[in-house]
Amino acid sequence: MLVVVALGGNALLQRGQAMTAEMQRMNIRTACAALAPVAEEHQLVISHGNGPQVGLLALKEQAYSDVDAYPLDILDAQTEGMIGYMVEQELGNVLPEDRPFASLLTMIEVDPADPAFADPTKFVGPVYDKEQADVLAGEKAWVFKQDGDKWRRVVASPAPKRIFEIEPVKWLVEMNTVVVCAGGGGIPTAFAADGSGALEGVEAVIDKDWASELLARDLGADVYVMATDTDGVYLDWGTPSQRLIDRATPAELAQHAFPAGSMGPKVDAACHFVLKTGKRAAIGGLKDILEIVAGTAGTQVVA
Amino acid sequence: MLVVVALGGNALLQRGQAMTAEMQRMNIRTACAALAPVAEEHQLVISHGNGPQVGLLALKEQAYSDVDAYPLDILDAQTEGMIGYMVEQELGNVLPEDRPFASLLTMIEVDPADPAFADPTKFVGPVYDKEQADVLAGEKAWVFKQDGDKWRRVVASPAPKRIFEIEPVKWLVEMNTVVVCAGGGGIPTAFAADGSGALEGVEAVIDKDWASELLARDLGADVYVMATDTDGVYLDWGTPSQRLIDRATPAELAQHAFPAGSMGPKVDAACHFVLKTGKRAAIGGLKDILEIVAGTAGTQVVA
Repeated sequence: MLVVVALGGNALLQRGQAMTAEMQRMNIRTACAALAPVAEEHQLVISHGNGPQVGLLALKEQAYSDVDAYPLDILDAQTEGMIGYMVEQELGNVLPEDRPFASLLTMIEVDPADPAFADPTKFVGPVYDKEQADVLAGEKAWVFKQDGDKWRRVVASPAPKRIFEIEPVKWLVEMNTVVVCAGGGGIPTAFAADGSGALEGVEAVIDKDWASELLARDLGADVYVMATDTDGVYLDWGTPSQRLIDRATPAELAQHAFPAGSMGPKVDAACHFVLKTGKRAAIGGLKDILEIVAGTAGTQVVA
Repeated sequence: MLVVVALGGNALLQRGQAMTAEMQRMNIRTACAALAPVAEEHQLVISHGNGPQVGLLALKEQAYSDVDAYPLDILDAQTEGMIGYMVEQELGNVLPEDRPFASLLTMIEVDPADPAFADPTKFVGPVYDKEQADVLAGEKAWVFKQDGDKWRRVVASPAPKRIFEIEPVKWLVEMNTVVVCAGGGGIPTAFAADGSGALEGVEAVIDKDWASELLARDLGADVYVMATDTDGVYLDWGTPSQRLIDRATPAELAQHAFPAGSMGPKVDAACHFVLKTGKRAAIGGLKDILEIVAGTAGTQVVA
């Protein structure tokens, strides 16, 4: 089977953990130990989040004032380099020596007319006082929203339209290469509004689960897994009657509402994948990844 | 023909230029405009330097003190992401739409017993006062050397032994993909001294021209070009009698000494490639790249 696994941000850096290189590497080592048996049985493509990492880079940009802060698309590219490197190195350490692996930078096209650009919602980077935020809003044309008693930059989260490097990813998968790509939801890009036809970077954040869904569809994956830090999707989560959904169709899942801040986008992406392809999607804990891929753990979304 | 081009640091960011994202992108756009006709006639693999970029990241790491500075191998990986992204985006903008391109992260093995580790020579990152340098030397086991009236970290520049992602690069080239890889001389890695067999990052700098020479050899390139900001290799450079070497064998070049800080490593890498493969290497200006590849400009090193 061809398996696409999207690693949640928590697999790389858990909330409250020190954001050191060592901590990230330790988490990635754990993730790769879980993924290795999947790679031994299947063709495997891995994507990953980059929320905490790109936030940290934005803080470092802010701390160094001799050069203008680099834009978000470039910071995204930096995180694809950093995380892709650590994943492929740790994975290489647990795979058989003759198994090829590669990390590809991934640009994903978004539509400048996407309605998401009219209402930016994703917080990125440092918090500011109102006065600082107003100055930056004027200087850089950034949009700010209140976050607690501080202000923070928000960017749009447009839908992914096209993965530019999809053919190279396909070719490498055909050669049984374990590929790391579409990190952080890919680097958002769009064709310039000036009519030149030039592709350029966009300061936005593509949802990782949706970018990976597009990746899984384009690759013809047999199963698309979103690996997170819970066992799967629950009904009545956080109440005494909470219970795991072990298997459901998109139609069944459509009868429930899942929080936009946690399972909502994952459930939507899973249902979209299943409806478009007739194949299987799954959501569950990274520790159970082999069983999730086999269809015996997590929440299985089926046609 | 299969052509490997190593882009010099100056092609990305010239000495004295502001280190902004815009400036880098402008330079990369110029470089890609020069490279596009080469890609239209040949299979093309591009590597690049990262000296100024990794130095800037080290400054940003130093400026942000809430989290321990990330090690050099991770910063190298970040620059492969950032520069690879800009190169592939700008190149994509000038290539025919159906020409595939990809940027691969590249880990390169070095030998922990390489004599270079006994005498680190490559300056990296910020300058410090003697007192600060002594503290850091104790805390982080960094080695410092004097740089003018300040102190600066030095790391080793070991020889590249093996490119871990070489097979994926080969497969992509066979599919006529323009590949960007081995950026910054690759991410230095070595097998752990603890006998575990684990590959881990090494805080070192592999010379880009030597890393690219290994890349060109492993790929079976027909010509290996080092693109820089001068027309080629000169005899008596900087004197009234200076003259360009337009064509020479390794034996002829061995009769001259070239400065270690500029043409020395390029000439050595060119000669090594020619002696090992019987193929052609060349050194010259990026603006003349098409003629250099054709064998009619720059310094051509031939068997």
